[in-house]
Amino acid sequence: MPELRKDPVTDRWVIISEERGKRPVFVTEEVSIPKSIICPLCPGNEGMTPPEVFAIRNYGSLPNSPGWNLRVVPNKFPALRIEGELEKEGIGIYDRMNGIGAHEVIIETPNHEEQLFDMDPFRMKDIFIAFKERCVDLSKDIRFKYIMVFKNYGQRAGASIDHSHSQLIALPIVPKNVAEEIRGSLTHYKLKERCIFCDIIAQEKDEDTRIVTENDKFIALSPYASRFPFEIWILPKKHESNFVAHIESSSYMSLAEIFSVILKKYEKGLKRPPYNFVLHTAPLATYDIPHYHWHIEIIPRLTRLAGFEWGTGFYINPTPPEEATSFLKEV
Amino acid sequence: MPELRKDPVTDRWVIISEERGKRPVFVTEEVSIPKSIICPLCPGNEGMTPPEVFAIRNYGSLPNSPGWNLRVVPNKFPALRIEGELEKEGIGIYDRMNGIGAHEVIIETPNHEEQLFDMDPFRMKDIFIAFKERCVDLSKDIRFKYIMVFKNYGQRAGASIDHSHSQLIALPIVPKNVAEEIRGSLTHYKLKERCIFCDIIAQEKDEDTRIVTENDKFIALSPYASRFPFEIWILPKKHESNFVAHIESSSYMSLAEIFSVILKKYEKGLKRPPYNFVLHTAPLATYDIPHYHWHIEIIPRLTRLAGFEWGTGFYINPTPPEEATSFLKEV
Repeated sequence: MPELRKDPVTDRWVIISEERGKRPVFVTEEVSIPKSIICPLCPGNEGMTPPEVFAIRNYGSLPNSPGWNLRVVPNKFPALRIEGELEKEGIGIYDRMNGIGAHEVIIETPNHEEQLFDMDPFRMKDIFIAFKERCVDLSKDIRFKYIMVFKNYGQRAGASIDHSHSQLIALPIVPKNVAEEIRGSLTHYKLKERCIFCDIIAQEKDEDTRIVTENDKFIALSPYASRFPFEIWILPKKHESNFVAHIESSSYMSLAEIFSVILKKYEKGLKRPPYNFVLHTAPLATYDIPHYHWHIEIIPRLTRLAGFEWGTGFYINPTPPEEATSFLKEV
Repeated sequence: MPELRKDPVTDRWVIISEERGKRPVFVTEEVSIPKSIICPLCPGNEGMTPPEVFAIRNYGSLPNSPGWNLRVVPNKFPALRIEGELEKEGIGIYDRMNGIGAHEVIIETPNHEEQLFDMDPFRMKDIFIAFKERCVDLSKDIRFKYIMVFKNYGQRAGASIDHSHSQLIALPIVPKNVAEEIRGSLTHYKLKERCIFCDIIAQEKDEDTRIVTENDKFIALSPYASRFPFEIWILPKKHESNFVAHIESSSYMSLAEIFSVILKKYEKGLKRPPYNFVLHTAPLATYDIPHYHWHIEIIPRLTRLAGFEWGTGFYINPTPPEEATSFLKEV
């Protein structure tokens, strides 16, 4: 029997329908990204990107030259522009503002062949350090209300370059889904005086059917109302609302470790699937709020979103999260 | 300069960023759907589907045998099931209910090779008649709160069978995005005592930069805050909140005509792109509400949704709707 489940934070309903798994499945070949003759993200080609804004480098190497392990540069084809005033305008019933923002690329490795699947946690932690550094820096710009950190791996997940990278976009607004999460968690807080994410962690520990793995500081679980097969959320076990303000130096390594465990499980169990991750954190203006809890959402892109999903905000997931969990625990 | 635009109904912001159009574009081959040896939707194979619930047939032909022009059958791999009680349950902080619902397939033509792009409006109107007939019938079931009518054409848009068809899902809840539209339009109504969609139509007629085409009863426009390149909404010009309750027999032909004009423009200008459409209408329990306005949203699937979009509910669209409009007007 299919089941309808509601996400307690956003009130989004999901159909968990194993029956759907039985319909004819077609192997969808991943059309691979054509190899560029020259990769603009490779060492030696630093001149092909805008000048770096952050890097983790070998001692003695110079900015915008080889010798880096990680490098952050403005996106050459930005969705938003850093220069200019934030002008807002009404046009009849419509509202617009200038596309002010920042759009940066975090080049995660100098090695063109290496993906996060191959990376050890010690090096992976530099990526989270880079996220934090860039967020702290950009949060000083009062035009920005939110910074969205995300990654697209594989063409089906939206990547257009295969050299391993993630991205961040600083926005003059709080995006709708984030605003909804904040609003939903505030509703819960007003009722219970507890963070709903802390409550989720407590209930998950109790039930123990959707926890994929955990370590000293983080927990990785399949959300109760998973939208996608093998969707996973990584949350700090301690209440922290804001990644930028709250993550401690001592936590990077634990975060990198649990992240790496999940990726290895995806690699082994799902054969290096295309995936996205998005860091969900409280808006910049809020420092410490009791009702929100930062986390990372990771989605392997195994199914296609069809008309139904974008039209309704309502997802059909053929893999119950309990099954996804036991599968991922075993691999 | 990129621009941020807000959808007046849902408060969803969109980045309109032409710059992004300039980044390297890769031809993404459409991986075609493997031809089944036997198509379950073709005439002669009626036994491969569950028995039909509606059909438009030649005189003298028998149910579940050839001689039909359009046929509606329950989905063989339904996301929801029609049988059973609607049981709701709380599990700690989580909510669930039985996956009760209906999932039907509207087989739009007996001809396996024919797509909506090829169909004349006179035959296309039968599809809208079928939508209405099935909605009226299913709306008698008090377990259902909403019926979602949609189509996926092309594998990239989520189709898994290439014989031309659309689908409907009857749901025991009102989907989130629809509920948001209703709420947003109600907010506007409380302020102005006018339907926001009627206001949109009035302003669009005034500005005349985003109207692609119109006829006696319908208007097709590129929404101000289009999420996708060449996104189009078709709305009745007269205020009508509920497709099922309000569409008149005399309107089917006008709807089919404007729909057909849009598809021909997509075919000519965008070369038969994969697309989705979703019918947005007021929930079943509401008969005539002054603040909501039914419409059809059509989205060619030319760009890939990446991590950014699903994480934020925030879209990046490289094609300003004014440009999309003037392009589509010309072809």
